[in-house]
Amino acid sequence: MRRKGHLIIVSGPSGVGKGTVCAEIMRQRPSLKLSISATTRPKRPHELSGESYFFYSMEEFQDLIDQNKLIEFAKVHGNFYGTPRDYVMDNLEKGEDVILEIDVQGAMQVKENLDEGVFIFLLPPRVKDLADRLHNRGTEGEEEIALRLKNSEGELANLHNYDYAVVNDEVEKCAETILHIIDAENQRIDASLMKKYREEYHD
Amino acid sequence: MRRKGHLIIVSGPSGVGKGTVCAEIMRQRPSLKLSISATTRPKRPHELSGESYFFYSMEEFQDLIDQNKLIEFAKVHGNFYGTPRDYVMDNLEKGEDVILEIDVQGAMQVKENLDEGVFIFLLPPRVKDLADRLHNRGTEGEEEIALRLKNSEGELANLHNYDYAVVNDEVEKCAETILHIIDAENQRIDASLMKKYREEYHD
Repeated sequence: MRRKGHLIIVSGPSGVGKGTVCAEIMRQRPSLKLSISATTRPKRPHELSGESYFFYSMEEFQDLIDQNKLIEFAKVHGNFYGTPRDYVMDNLEKGEDVILEIDVQGAMQVKENLDEGVFIFLLPPRVKDLADRLHNRGTEGEEEIALRLKNSEGELANLHNYDYAVVNDEVEKCAETILHIIDAENQRIDASLMKKYREEYHD
Repeated sequence: MRRKGHLIIVSGPSGVGKGTVCAEIMRQRPSLKLSISATTRPKRPHELSGESYFFYSMEEFQDLIDQNKLIEFAKVHGNFYGTPRDYVMDNLEKGEDVILEIDVQGAMQVKENLDEGVFIFLLPPRVKDLADRLHNRGTEGEEEIALRLKNSEGELANLHNYDYAVVNDEVEKCAETILHIIDAENQRIDASLMKKYREEYHD
């Protein structure tokens, strides 16, 4: 018997380094599955559907919403982004652990829509570091940064909805800690583990 | 602010290798505290009280019981063995993680007497291996081994009272997995972590 996999939600405020940490997690353990988002934003020349994103037209995306085929979605700058339910659930059923990188609003939608998930909140070492990172990234203006910092305070208020908090101090160490959390979750005693051992010890 | 430490209960059937695994845990991470048992069995020449055991007379031990100074105890072959509450609680308060190696009956007493604890059940790869180990150890006769195997089946029925199950396949890997569980528990979001971050982010 194989256990079901775990859905690992890696979330946190904008600028905390979710993308970098998830890339490092996948580098350290390529056997994990990274959830692929659905989007209506135009495909760029080098992109393939099913690699970084699943690309859909507005009509197709609306169908996904109507058929409840997304575990969360949002409209950002006029484009839809969402997490396809089938890709996640199929992998979990096969016993694969799935990493889902997602903002706090999306994570809270997943929590409402699914009965499962290990919710990990990434924290900057200090709020000041978050400001520095947003400045260094240089993709947001001053006003946008101020807004994001204000939002991040609100997002921190969601901490109690998560299972774990990990400070993203060093990206390698942060990814390692998340892998340890995944390892621990895989040893957690639940109905499926009980069943597995009962079968093994009585064969 | 410092978080409280975790009490890590390493338990499981007789012969599963609890002692070897705990020694390996302490070898890999000497900063952890190993709980020291109280006993009434006579001190051997090379032993020091407070190292492998705290040694007490029968009267002293009875006082410990009467004053509720043990989180669990049992009488084995006419001698008392127990876990002193103060040593454990003082270390937890200081923020130290404490390892407690204990049989299933003792672990269930701890669960009743304390509000805390991370309960880890060590499993042999197969029941057959448990029998082999008991034979190889050579400290028990055939009848004793048969009794212990029968008991271990009963103990397996306690699995649902534990938080984690770890198969003791290779002792190094098993110890490493338990360290990962400890790491994960230290990232778990609870009231004390929330308080810590609220203080840190608003200083």
